[in-house]
Amino acid sequence: MEFKVNSKELEKLLSKIIPAVPTRTPMPILENFLLEVKDGLLTVYATDLEISLKASINIITDENVKLVVPARLLNDIVRSLKDTSIYFKLTSNKKVNLITDTGKYVISYLDPEEYPDIPSVVADKDTKDIFEASINGLELKNAFDKIAFAMSKEEMRPAMMGTLFDFSEEGLRFVTTDGHRLANLLKKDGKFSFVQQYVVPERAISVLSKLLDEKEVKMLLTKTYVSFKLSDIELITRLIAQKYPDYTSVIPLENEFLLKVKTKEIHDSIKRMMLFSTTSTRRVKFSLDKTMVEISAEDLDIGASGEEKVECEYNGEKLEIGFNSTYVNDILNHMSDCEEIIFKLHSPTKAVIIEPVEKKENQDLMMLLMPVRLNN
Amino acid sequence: MEFKVNSKELEKLLSKIIPAVPTRTPMPILENFLLEVKDGLLTVYATDLEISLKASINIITDENVKLVVPARLLNDIVRSLKDTSIYFKLTSNKKVNLITDTGKYVISYLDPEEYPDIPSVVADKDTKDIFEASINGLELKNAFDKIAFAMSKEEMRPAMMGTLFDFSEEGLRFVTTDGHRLANLLKKDGKFSFVQQYVVPERAISVLSKLLDEKEVKMLLTKTYVSFKLSDIELITRLIAQKYPDYTSVIPLENEFLLKVKTKEIHDSIKRMMLFSTTSTRRVKFSLDKTMVEISAEDLDIGASGEEKVECEYNGEKLEIGFNSTYVNDILNHMSDCEEIIFKLHSPTKAVIIEPVEKKENQDLMMLLMPVRLNN
Repeated sequence: MEFKVNSKELEKLLSKIIPAVPTRTPMPILENFLLEVKDGLLTVYATDLEISLKASINIITDENVKLVVPARLLNDIVRSLKDTSIYFKLTSNKKVNLITDTGKYVISYLDPEEYPDIPSVVADKDTKDIFEASINGLELKNAFDKIAFAMSKEEMRPAMMGTLFDFSEEGLRFVTTDGHRLANLLKKDGKFSFVQQYVVPERAISVLSKLLDEKEVKMLLTKTYVSFKLSDIELITRLIAQKYPDYTSVIPLENEFLLKVKTKEIHDSIKRMMLFSTTSTRRVKFSLDKTMVEISAEDLDIGASGEEKVECEYNGEKLEIGFNSTYVNDILNHMSDCEEIIFKLHSPTKAVIIEPVEKKENQDLMMLLMPVRLNN
Repeated sequence: MEFKVNSKELEKLLSKIIPAVPTRTPMPILENFLLEVKDGLLTVYATDLEISLKASINIITDENVKLVVPARLLNDIVRSLKDTSIYFKLTSNKKVNLITDTGKYVISYLDPEEYPDIPSVVADKDTKDIFEASINGLELKNAFDKIAFAMSKEEMRPAMMGTLFDFSEEGLRFVTTDGHRLANLLKKDGKFSFVQQYVVPERAISVLSKLLDEKEVKMLLTKTYVSFKLSDIELITRLIAQKYPDYTSVIPLENEFLLKVKTKEIHDSIKRMMLFSTTSTRRVKFSLDKTMVEISAEDLDIGASGEEKVECEYNGEKLEIGFNSTYVNDILNHMSDCEEIIFKLHSPTKAVIIEPVEKKENQDLMMLLMPVRLNN
């Protein structure tokens, strides 16, 4: 049994699949690729039991075979070769020989039976539990870039460790929160005839994000899995089974005080104040007045403090409000493409809404941040 | 007491001095800068008690003062400011106020008495124990780039944790070794009327390397300290007091077998073989024949192996010799600007010399590598 493949084509294929290979796992079999040669097609699979990746290339061979090979070793070998043909030859002692013009590399393989099943999600118009949707790859990537940061890392509430995909007539809404801040992005370019919520785990979001390009992505959504079909690769992820918390209930409606500032100015100021905010609280104070907001922080442990004035437009009464500077910084990092932003406030203890002044077409972005108590 | 300084000028100054500030130290005072304002000059010092850095800028002030301020905090504040004037104002409660157009930052300072003495090396023609030498900064940097990798990390033999500066009529020779490999570079452009050896610690080499530019460097050499005077900064380092081992005794003279190879070809091959060499030994085998050297490695733990043929010119008898692939890789990394290299060999157990085929003007580079035993 042998087959031939170009090193650079295989390198490209493997580099897309390797992100699904776990780095530390109690199941060493997952550190392998499953290679399937069938009808002139080489398909490579990897899974960490949560997400699976799969992609194929055409190769020259008459035979069919399945084998399981060490993922990182194969990836490293192929990556280190120059542009050349590689002949894969299976020998009787469970070895694969990779033969090029100048070298021969021998690696062991395992039987495909030892590899876990890769889930597959098949579209079936008759099944009412499967929904289809499609979205431009770059739009999806941009959405992830804006909101992924606010996913929780706390295992206490598993649903919050993922991103909510909320399909409705309005469009597709992405929500993330860790209980301290919330990111909420509605894409209005696609309308959906179904109302469904899916919670996609963090790892799927981060792996998918690196694979997305300007091409269309087709989603197949079931109760337990979602498949993202890109032009040349498919990612299937298990969904988080827990129901997502009701995010609408935490969004305040009566935040009547509006603070308008230049994003870069206030962000630069926050970054400097982070040098002064006490490590334990990370607290930064906003003191609001009509045309000027004073940003200040104090680190009692090292006896240092800082204060800065930033120009603003503010329509409310004088107000002092505290935030965790790391959270403000995170939010501003993800709004750096908005020249001006608005903080919508009500009181020093109520959630604050942060939105861009100029809305993007077909897109509503809203960040929400809980204040922290000022002790005075 | 106050003085004024431009933020960008101060940023540039501090960024040069901060490498001498230790990251972890049992003496927290060393995590500070010593600032000295004297006769319109602001001088900043830092030391880790092994190396010290010192540089100055002109400032506007009528008063003189010395103070000790947290190094990283001051550096971070200044770096985060836009191009602006900073007024330093000392207040009675041991605080410095840094005041700009839009902000005020308060940090604590300590008394200069708490800061350790910075050594100084002064040229004195009458003292016969002080020698002077100068070298172009880029030449010195290139020398460090070639040889610094072979310094030992083992605390057992302190001298080998530094770089030997060997001055003689031949020129200035740099030697590093960890007992497994040795790097030896002779710069012949300067001749010296004195014969002296100095062992400069690793940290001085690595900090200095980042500061060097095309300008001349003046060295003042005493029995215990060396001062490197660059155009805008001075580095003073304590010397390693232990005598450097006699490196000439390990350089073999009768290595009559010559193997000539293209550097990139054999290096690429070694990098691939590193994927297969057992983690514990890292061994790679060279099997030498007239026109072809076979490079091979085997990892018995994972049942993988690799072999490659590389074209060569070889004038000796058939020979198999083993090396630690990491060491070969290190050496080839530092000879990548040589198109072809020569391995000079004698037997599978004797040290091998590696040299460029084309010598640079006024420069002799020689690497030496101990083989490892092949078990068969």
